[in-house]
Amino acid sequence: MTDSTTEREPGSLGCGPLWQIADDSRSLRQQVFETVRAAGRIPRIELARSLGISPASVTATSSELIASGLIEEVAAGPRVGDFARGRPPVALGVRGSALYVAGIKMSDLAHSAVIVDFAGDLVASARMERDGGALALSDLLREAEQVLDNALRAANLSRAQISSVGLGIPGIVDNEAGTVFWSPLLHERELMMRDAFAAIVGVPVEIDNDANLVTLAELWFGAGRKRREFVVVTIEQGVGMGLVLNHQLYRGAKGLGMELGHTIVQLDGALCRCGKRGCLEAYVADYALVREARTALNLGNRGVKSPQILLESLYDHAKAGNQAARAIFGRAGRFLALGLANVVNIFDPSLVLLSGERMRYDYLYAEEVLSEMQHMILQKGRPAPTVEIRAWGDLLWARGAAALALDATTRATFNAEPEAA
Amino acid sequence: MTDSTTEREPGSLGCGPLWQIADDSRSLRQQVFETVRAAGRIPRIELARSLGISPASVTATSSELIASGLIEEVAAGPRVGDFARGRPPVALGVRGSALYVAGIKMSDLAHSAVIVDFAGDLVASARMERDGGALALSDLLREAEQVLDNALRAANLSRAQISSVGLGIPGIVDNEAGTVFWSPLLHERELMMRDAFAAIVGVPVEIDNDANLVTLAELWFGAGRKRREFVVVTIEQGVGMGLVLNHQLYRGAKGLGMELGHTIVQLDGALCRCGKRGCLEAYVADYALVREARTALNLGNRGVKSPQILLESLYDHAKAGNQAARAIFGRAGRFLALGLANVVNIFDPSLVLLSGERMRYDYLYAEEVLSEMQHMILQKGRPAPTVEIRAWGDLLWARGAAALALDATTRATFNAEPEAA
Repeated sequence: MTDSTTEREPGSLGCGPLWQIADDSRSLRQQVFETVRAAGRIPRIELARSLGISPASVTATSSELIASGLIEEVAAGPRVGDFARGRPPVALGVRGSALYVAGIKMSDLAHSAVIVDFAGDLVASARMERDGGALALSDLLREAEQVLDNALRAANLSRAQISSVGLGIPGIVDNEAGTVFWSPLLHERELMMRDAFAAIVGVPVEIDNDANLVTLAELWFGAGRKRREFVVVTIEQGVGMGLVLNHQLYRGAKGLGMELGHTIVQLDGALCRCGKRGCLEAYVADYALVREARTALNLGNRGVKSPQILLESLYDHAKAGNQAARAIFGRAGRFLALGLANVVNIFDPSLVLLSGERMRYDYLYAEEVLSEMQHMILQKGRPAPTVEIRAWGDLLWARGAAALALDATTRATFNAEPEAA
Repeated sequence: MTDSTTEREPGSLGCGPLWQIADDSRSLRQQVFETVRAAGRIPRIELARSLGISPASVTATSSELIASGLIEEVAAGPRVGDFARGRPPVALGVRGSALYVAGIKMSDLAHSAVIVDFAGDLVASARMERDGGALALSDLLREAEQVLDNALRAANLSRAQISSVGLGIPGIVDNEAGTVFWSPLLHERELMMRDAFAAIVGVPVEIDNDANLVTLAELWFGAGRKRREFVVVTIEQGVGMGLVLNHQLYRGAKGLGMELGHTIVQLDGALCRCGKRGCLEAYVADYALVREARTALNLGNRGVKSPQILLESLYDHAKAGNQAARAIFGRAGRFLALGLANVVNIFDPSLVLLSGERMRYDYLYAEEVLSEMQHMILQKGRPAPTVEIRAWGDLLWARGAAALALDATTRATFNAEPEAA
């Protein structure tokens, strides 16, 4: 199990242009800025090579960005060999203190919040346990407000000092409209949660589902920084998926795609929380295992145990050799293999990141699952993609929410500028 | 059932920039050219609006393209209302006779070839019936050569007069490498078919699988011309899928994605031609129905009937009320609904085009299939996508192969130019 690092790796760029310019509306200033931020720190000459523009253009544009207080000169870091002596080389880095944003990850049993600076570095964080279950929107927003204020207090910042807030919530979220169509944390459907929270906290808010957050976290701070395209599959209370194409998060044609958890893997199969039958998450997600655990452990109505405790108990029984418990994990593992194979058959990625709290149950990343996945992938005469297990904690998901906020803030910063000719 | 039109609809642009510039490497000349070609004919002022550039830039760039013989001035077409009288307005159109390309669609029972001009207009075509079954590469290429020469003869052109050939074949094809990893038409695997055919015909060749061809045909000549993103699902000998993102064909991260027919829809399910179990096409494709028809019609070994005849016979029995035959189509329809729903759950498209010869069996587009698909789509509080049935014949698939050739030729034409500053 690889624990994802939150530290930037300075100077780790070196695989050609990192930002293939997919969005033509970005000015050169923004492209330079985003390349610097993605690199952590980068010498001007490497920046020119990476963007395919002249060193003179880089010098001119970076001077403007330095004058605006958005980037700054930093030491390029220790060098080895011939370059070890003499004047230390200079690189460019984002000026972290230029501004701050907040990221909040809401989930069933706890909310987390982080404050990060403009360079994406962590300033402070907070975590708040909760009882679980759905609430009315106003009550859920009160919880979000509380965990945000705790993080702000730890950072010694006021609400007025942050530029925007990224909010992540499980469920079906329209990022563009700011609408939550459905969430296990909310009683009602189709709620304009983004604007409601922005009205409360008084700063711009961005909202997305949690699978997209963890994908953004990988893209900004994790294994995805050097990858043009990759897939993230998350397993927690539900099954989610995030897709990066051309260094950008892809949300489906109309913004609500990538619902891997609700692809049907069995006609007339197990009942899903969404009301349909045979969805992948009805075999793989927490609630599916808990449902079977009640049968396997023969609990009946004796005591109301929390899903968390039931899952742990099921896992302990399986480890101790209980056949019913093993069969539950075994089937979940086979369906997980099927879901991963379908992702590979459709997207043909070179990298699949498996993420989520549940990755610590080892049946999920056991050799058998990966080997079964291999058998379900269409044989193309090429090696199967790399599958990496990522044990992100809630705090790192919250950094994905911060990346969402940083992205919006960056766009707002550069869109407000007069356009380049 | 909508029969797709092969005619361009002049002046049908009017929905904002048609070409969101996704590929930054395209010069302004190429962008202007491709916008003109996509529009069929377009006045300069509309071209400027569509590309978001100044009318002066359009005038300068279009003069260069006219001088190079790539586009020409044409009548803008009849106008109504206030503009009906006076000097006829002038538009720009691609100069069709600038060059010619060929497109070939190979399939089990027939090959088709077309010759189209630079504007994408059909010049001539040819069709060649065949016995069906797999061949050695050299024998299959001889067939391709033959159908190509027949089309050239009909166009009164020699091989030396065409700029490139697009070749479409069912199976797993790496467009970039020019490799066919597997095809039902070939005995062997992993064949460098593109280069082998280029060596024979003496002009550059592009190769792709047939689902991508039909998607290109929709993108260049069909319903996709005005769509930024759409999905095509094809059902013939197998089940294929094509995806357009941002007006461009998307083939998956490493070029071999979109294998919808080999997504697993049933653990340990029906055996597929690919050797795996439970693939979608093992329930929906021609060979899957033929396999069941042998049981349902109780044919045993009485006479060797062709798959085509068996399918027709099965269809006739179903229409006449045979319960077993109906059950076969019924199950295939439910699995088709499942496959389409999964496409919608993943890609969230606004338009799905269902294509292929088999669309004429009405169970495939019967109301029940579409209604069942609706029930399998995750409810997001928004209407489901439009599903359109397209009865493309082989000839139009061959035009997709020609689009593949045109695309390569256009890129080659503009890449050979000195780069704009």
